[in-house]
Amino acid sequence: MALNIKPLADRVVVEPLPAETQTASGLYIPDTAQEKQQKGKVVAVGPGKKDEPLTVKPGDTVLYGKYSGSELKFDGTDYMIMREDDILAII
Amino acid sequence: MALNIKPLADRVVVEPLPAETQTASGLYIPDTAQEKQQKGKVVAVGPGKKDEPLTVKPGDTVLYGKYSGSELKFDGTDYMIMREDDILAII
Amino acid sequence: MALNIKPLADRVVVEPLPAETQTASGLYIPDTAQEKQQKGKVVAVGPGKKDEPLTVKPGDTVLYGKYSGSELKFDGTDYMIMREDDILAII
Amino acid sequence: MALNIKPLADRVVVEPLPAETQTASGLYIPDTAQEKQQKGKVVAVGPGKKDEPLTVKPGDTVLYGKYSGSELKFDGTDYMIMREDDILAII
Amino acid sequence: MALNIKPLADRVVVEPLPAETQTASGLYIPDTAQEKQQKGKVVAVGPGKKDEPLTVKPGDTVLYGKYSGSELKFDGTDYMIMREDDILAII
Amino acid sequence: MALNIKPLADRVVVEPLPAETQTASGLYIPDTAQEKQQKGKVVAVGPGKKDEPLTVKPGDTVLYGKYSGSELKFDGTDYMIMREDDILAII
Amino acid sequence: MALNIKPLADRVVVEPLPAETQTASGLYIPDTAQEKQQKGKVVAVGPGKKDEPLTVKPGDTVLYGKYSGSELKFDGTDYMIMREDDILAII
Repeated sequence: MALNIKPLADRVVVEPLPAETQTASGLYIPDTAQEKQQKGKVVAVGPGKKDEPLTVKPGDTVLYGKYSGSELKFDGTDYMIMREDDILAII
Repeated sequence: MALNIKPLADRVVVEPLPAETQTASGLYIPDTAQEKQQKGKVVAVGPGKKDEPLTVKPGDTVLYGKYSGSELKFDGTDYMIMREDDILAII
Repeated sequence: MALNIKPLADRVVVEPLPAETQTASGLYIPDTAQEKQQKGKVVAVGPGKKDEPLTVKPGDTVLYGKYSGSELKFDGTDYMIMREDDILAII
Repeated sequence: MALNIKPLADRVVVEPLPAETQTASGLYIPDTAQEKQQKGKVVAVGPGKKDEPLTVKPGDTVLYGKYSGSELKFDGTDYMIMREDDILAII
Repeated sequence: MALNIKPLADRVVVEPLPAETQTASGLYIPDTAQEKQQKGKVVAVGPGKKDEPLTVKPGDTVLYGKYSGSELKFDGTDYMIMREDDILAII
Repeated sequence: MALNIKPLADRVVVEPLPAETQTASGLYIPDTAQEKQQKGKVVAVGPGKKDEPLTVKPGDTVLYGKYSGSELKFDGTDYMIMREDDILAII
Repeated sequence: MALNIKPLADRVVVEPLPAETQTASGLYIPDTAQEKQQKGKVVAVGPGKKDEPLTVKPGDTVLYGKYSGSELKFDGTDYMIMREDDILAII
């Protein structure tokens, strides 16, 4: 959470959480059946656009589309950087 | 309805209701003849955009285009998450 | 007209009227020569967008493009649901 | 001109006038050499958009692009219905 | 200049001037080497859009892209009708 | 600089400067390796759009994308005419 | 940093920093596995758009998409020029 990166405007840096590949009943599900959204933890947020401060904040667990944003490698770790509008919900 | 998910902005989480595959007269209709819209129950709504509060609320039964929004798996259940503008009507 | 459906925003529910397939002189016209617009009766209207109340109201007979809006099956009847902007004229 | 049709918003109903197929010198011109614009008489106009009243009025003879608007059959007559922005000029 | 045509909104009627097909040194240049812009004389202008009166006026000689606007045959003469934004410069 | 041309709105007339085809060390570089931007001298500027006066002025040397704007032959000289937004920087 | 170039509006000139082609453990990574973003040092910034001053300033190290902006050769050095919106974050 002490990530030294300052996203610009309405951008958000998210650390992806592993997709759950096991169902509640303990069955492993194959890759193609996995969920279309992705879970992640917000690690840095931009200041927002002039008249639209961001809603998410560092520490939030969020859902976002699997194909939203772009990959960002930083300090050897893989993150996603996306616009807040690509985030579907806070859970 | 106590779903622990907070959609962002104008997004709405809907739990799809099964399509009716039987006509009033009791005939089963084949898949291709099924309706183009989908019925669902709203389970969570976002705060709306700055100047445009949402109209639908949790508990509403809504109609939405069959191809609107995207699938969202959460706590083992399948939901749809979409923008309110993708919802056609409250019934 | 007591249809229990509340369209959202600027959407309008229309019940299509049958195309006229007979000319004034009594000749039947083939399908491909039929008119490009469609006639219908408005059965439900949304509240309009924030700064743009709707013009059409339930009971109006309207013309709309044959390929406007999308089909909506409701209580066993076929309707069309479209944005008011897809309606060409009230007749 | 007593056409019982009320176009919505910025729409205009035009009755096309026949293209001139004879030049000033009396020569007939073939179809492919005919003009790209079309002449017509305005028979009904919408109320305009909220902040943009229409300029043309019933009775005006107007020029519009040959491929503007869409055909409208009404009371057995062929009209064109288009947005005022598709009208090029009043002559 | 006494052309009886009233362009709507931001439209401008231009009478094309012949492209120069001879260089300063007297050489004729083939068609494919001719200039990409076109010179013309403004013969009629619209009232402009609500908050944007037109800059060009009848009598101005203007340059416009060879493929801007559309042809307009009127009173036996060929004109071009285009939006003012398609005009590059007054010369 | 006494070019008798008045660009409209936010348009700028630029006289292209020759690309440098020789490196600092004196080597000639082939055409395909040449730079993607182009240098030019501003010779005429429009009045700007209503609420956005232009920044560049005649005499400025500017960089612009090689494929921005369109060619303009005027008084026997080749110019480029482009919107100011196509200009990358003043040097 | 004394680069004599004035980007227009919201444009930013960035001097790319070499991509790291060696992992922390000392292994060289092949080209195709390299990161999708690019690191660079800001060397010049525009004045911003009328109501949106720029956030980055000369000297900032920034991340930007590998395919953002366009190349700019200036004084024999390769730079990138892009709109500030193409910059993902300051690091």
